[in-house]
Amino acid sequence: MTPEQRAQKVISGDVRAAARLMRDIDDNQPGWRQVLKLLHARAGQARVIGLTGSPGVGKSTITDALVERFRAQGLTVGVVAVDPTSPFSGGAILGDRIRMQRHATDEGVFIRSLATRGHFGGLTSSARGVVTVMEAMGLDVVLVETVGVGQDEVEIVRMADTTVVVTVPGMGDDIQAIKAGILEAGDIFVVNKADRDGAGRTVNELKGMLHLSGDHSRRAGWEPPVLTTCATDGKGLDELVSTLAEHYRVLSADGGQMLAQRRREGLRRELLELIQAGMMEYLLERLDQGEGLAPVIERVMAGREDPYSASENILASILGD
Amino acid sequence: MTPEQRAQKVISGDVRAAARLMRDIDDNQPGWRQVLKLLHARAGQARVIGLTGSPGVGKSTITDALVERFRAQGLTVGVVAVDPTSPFSGGAILGDRIRMQRHATDEGVFIRSLATRGHFGGLTSSARGVVTVMEAMGLDVVLVETVGVGQDEVEIVRMADTTVVVTVPGMGDDIQAIKAGILEAGDIFVVNKADRDGAGRTVNELKGMLHLSGDHSRRAGWEPPVLTTCATDGKGLDELVSTLAEHYRVLSADGGQMLAQRRREGLRRELLELIQAGMMEYLLERLDQGEGLAPVIERVMAGREDPYSASENILASILGD
Repeated sequence: MTPEQRAQKVISGDVRAAARLMRDIDDNQPGWRQVLKLLHARAGQARVIGLTGSPGVGKSTITDALVERFRAQGLTVGVVAVDPTSPFSGGAILGDRIRMQRHATDEGVFIRSLATRGHFGGLTSSARGVVTVMEAMGLDVVLVETVGVGQDEVEIVRMADTTVVVTVPGMGDDIQAIKAGILEAGDIFVVNKADRDGAGRTVNELKGMLHLSGDHSRRAGWEPPVLTTCATDGKGLDELVSTLAEHYRVLSADGGQMLAQRRREGLRRELLELIQAGMMEYLLERLDQGEGLAPVIERVMAGREDPYSASENILASILGD
Repeated sequence: MTPEQRAQKVISGDVRAAARLMRDIDDNQPGWRQVLKLLHARAGQARVIGLTGSPGVGKSTITDALVERFRAQGLTVGVVAVDPTSPFSGGAILGDRIRMQRHATDEGVFIRSLATRGHFGGLTSSARGVVTVMEAMGLDVVLVETVGVGQDEVEIVRMADTTVVVTVPGMGDDIQAIKAGILEAGDIFVVNKADRDGAGRTVNELKGMLHLSGDHSRRAGWEPPVLTTCATDGKGLDELVSTLAEHYRVLSADGGQMLAQRRREGLRRELLELIQAGMMEYLLERLDQGEGLAPVIERVMAGREDPYSASENILASILGD
């Protein structure tokens, strides 16, 4: 099948073609970029919502509840669950199947897990690609759920129009558990499992951190609220949905200038990542053509060269300076 | 001061010069690489031990206990606490001061926190640099403590000769809480707070995951043990110290072939990271000289170009293909 045919199938709503393309993206199979190039003109139509938080805070439960509520509004929903913590690639797929069952008879929901690791810029690039595919499928809302603990995950949530940061009371040292980048990236903070001891303290700590952090450039005109939920029994979820709607209204005000600005920033990051990944591919190819790193490593191990000088020499030879 | 003078001061044990150099590394101030080039010949003499785990599992308590025990053996100890979760740069420094007080009168202990973010390859590169400085200072053991949750942290623990992965019973979904890369990188696993419910189950789950994961190439001849500790009351720490010694004996057997192989792998990663960071610097410089990304972003926003083609075009223009 040509890239054009594959793209056309995705746009016409062929779920199997879309699923195959997403798998190719996750596995970094050749050819996916050609299809994505054709799909890109269809992107930018969906509302992209990021959910992030440590393992065990209840992100999946909240995601599922949001899916139900968006469906009740008549919106179609895509879910991208990014799980780099899954030690076995089968884990994510199994998780997909279990979660899919809840929505198995609902054609308005499309769920896909990603567990890519190991290639440069892999996870962020894959997640963006899968979001683009979901947008091209015509889904109205795309929820991107990540374990929000590393730099990769911060990058991923930054591609969203709205980022929800989920935490729970009493996660050891609460302040430590929120990364600086995530604090800055969050538009809405949720303290889940709020029936537990210490929920009020966690809310106040978060408010204090948000007040102190000061970097509100990303969210001019929006004071990030701190909500409380008990996702398992549904408490606070309607307020989360209405707060999400309110944030989208703020982003879309004045002809959508804030939304466009946010997407510009996301695009800048995406371009830099793509260029970086391309440079690394070029570098590794050039190293393969030459003597490779092995003799350099031996020279450094023997103390005849230091790694800083060695890397500068390699760079100079590759870039021709 | 010339780089030669700065290097000489560090080698001669000038603590203030070493501290200043580490701060320059963390802040990526110009000049630190020149000094590191000169210090590198002094590296490779210390035993480097990595400790990693989620926030709140008790890494700092274990680290402090190890410092005491190594000091009792007459060894000098450096601690590099990598804390990218700290939302305010002051946090790490304050933490340093508090922790330093315990060892304030002990000249055989040197503690340094790192919170670098934001420059390409920043945290890993900084951590390696600080370890090199500590080795050049002549410290016998260097403990690198990281919040082991993101890809950066996996890279950091991979620079250690021995990696200790710390977890606690009942961290939500226990299996999710251990990243695949960390499972592969771990030489010794510790279930801390083992007086809590579920400790036995966590130990068994870890053993099962280690058995299933199968990737033992990094640790030929070493079956990673799963230990239990209660660091706050000292239980299990002597066993941890003796297991660390045992692992170092295995690494050093047969003329230290395993140790050398591990350091070769670490060096390969370091070189690739340094080259990647250098390429990104070159890229950003070239972009600044040209039209930059702004017009490209506008073309993509307007749907006249897709990000994949745009990044390919930029790469081709920079690399001259």
